[in-house]
Amino acid sequence: MKKNIRIVLINTSHPGNIGSAARAMKTMALDNLYLVSPQKFPDDQAVAMASGAGDILDNAVVVDTVEEAIADCALVMGTSARMRRVRWPQLEPREAVEQIMEESVSHPVAILFGTERIGLTNEELDCCHTLINVPTNPEYGSLNVASAVQIMSYELRLAELSEDEGARKALLSSAAPNEKEDSDFATSDEFEGMIAHAEKMMVDVDFIDPNHPEKLLRQIRSMFNRIRLTKREINILRGIYAAAQKKAK
Amino acid sequence: MKKNIRIVLINTSHPGNIGSAARAMKTMALDNLYLVSPQKFPDDQAVAMASGAGDILDNAVVVDTVEEAIADCALVMGTSARMRRVRWPQLEPREAVEQIMEESVSHPVAILFGTERIGLTNEELDCCHTLINVPTNPEYGSLNVASAVQIMSYELRLAELSEDEGARKALLSSAAPNEKEDSDFATSDEFEGMIAHAEKMMVDVDFIDPNHPEKLLRQIRSMFNRIRLTKREINILRGIYAAAQKKAK
Repeated sequence: MKKNIRIVLINTSHPGNIGSAARAMKTMALDNLYLVSPQKFPDDQAVAMASGAGDILDNAVVVDTVEEAIADCALVMGTSARMRRVRWPQLEPREAVEQIMEESVSHPVAILFGTERIGLTNEELDCCHTLINVPTNPEYGSLNVASAVQIMSYELRLAELSEDEGARKALLSSAAPNEKEDSDFATSDEFEGMIAHAEKMMVDVDFIDPNHPEKLLRQIRSMFNRIRLTKREINILRGIYAAAQKKAK
Repeated sequence: MKKNIRIVLINTSHPGNIGSAARAMKTMALDNLYLVSPQKFPDDQAVAMASGAGDILDNAVVVDTVEEAIADCALVMGTSARMRRVRWPQLEPREAVEQIMEESVSHPVAILFGTERIGLTNEELDCCHTLINVPTNPEYGSLNVASAVQIMSYELRLAELSEDEGARKALLSSAAPNEKEDSDFATSDEFEGMIAHAEKMMVDVDFIDPNHPEKLLRQIRSMFNRIRLTKREINILRGIYAAAQKKAK
């Protein structure tokens, strides 16, 4: 239930990041954004960075406290750098998303993102049932807040696609008008005609010994067989062969 | 081999996006950035958005053309929206990353990111062996370029971590006899040499008009790029071209 998955940005300093986060969400088909005391919102910079995702900003719910943002949620996860000795379970995005997908079927789930400078405070962490750690570079883990939203939204999108196998098939089949092109693939006969023509041409230009063409022909066949040539490509190749033969005579 | 994984940003309009991309890379422990004709670089906005990842910007390689950026790469992948009726294999990030991790053991691999407004041009797509599609919202697929870098870098980081765990090492060692063969793939330079030779040969045998070779060359390039030619195959093809040219004279 996408409607039950809520992205919560807390005290975000730069409105541009709110806009970027909205865009990140929309590219992954999420639209439920909560803003807890944003420092500047609404703001032109947010709109600019949202690009075509202005509707996510328009529909964003602005509240004063984290408690309000998560009041009706039965699962709250917080994104943070990996911490030692904490009480919360710490999951990677992919593991977290599994649980989010399961639970969001029955109730709202919130994913919290802290400020640019310090992330989630201890009080905010206390609201979380589970922490999500993006496995960043140990020497530089400074993920931009909108980038963190992008990664989580991307994982949610992958989970949604793989869960809804039906939707996925539909997506694939909507991209399937490859069929048209498929039907343009050369047949086996046409392929063999091209290989035979290549052999004659190579004899005509003295590239192969007509008595022992096998080895080279096998290599040429194996090369072209690795792709599925279209009818058009076969025609181009045979056109080149014919031109070379004509010149050779 | 992280050093062999190259992020290539092409004609990026906003320096802030270059900075954000650098930060995205560094959070995931990548550091090999190429910039093809960036519109403004170096730039304060890039430095500001890079936050603590200024070293990635300082070490970025700035070049004029995509060809320079990929000259020594034997595998080139381009990020794009999902397209209908194209001849390239189109992979999701996770699938693409599997191949990138395998191949970067033996040679440089490039991942291309196009401009903010239009993505990769047809000419740039022609340089690619494979396309990567992030599975975005069908109704709003407008992923910011730095966000796309973030997602790819994140997937590369996950792959690296799971490789470190050894599971992947075992997989690689069982598939290791491919290593020799992989290292035989032609580089981009060798490929371009073959295409230039094909062009000369086709002119010599009167197959193409030397003033308007573009359309046909694009088709030939796209055909051979799907094959991923080995060094040996490039030599065979160039041998055939040379024989045809000799006969034509």
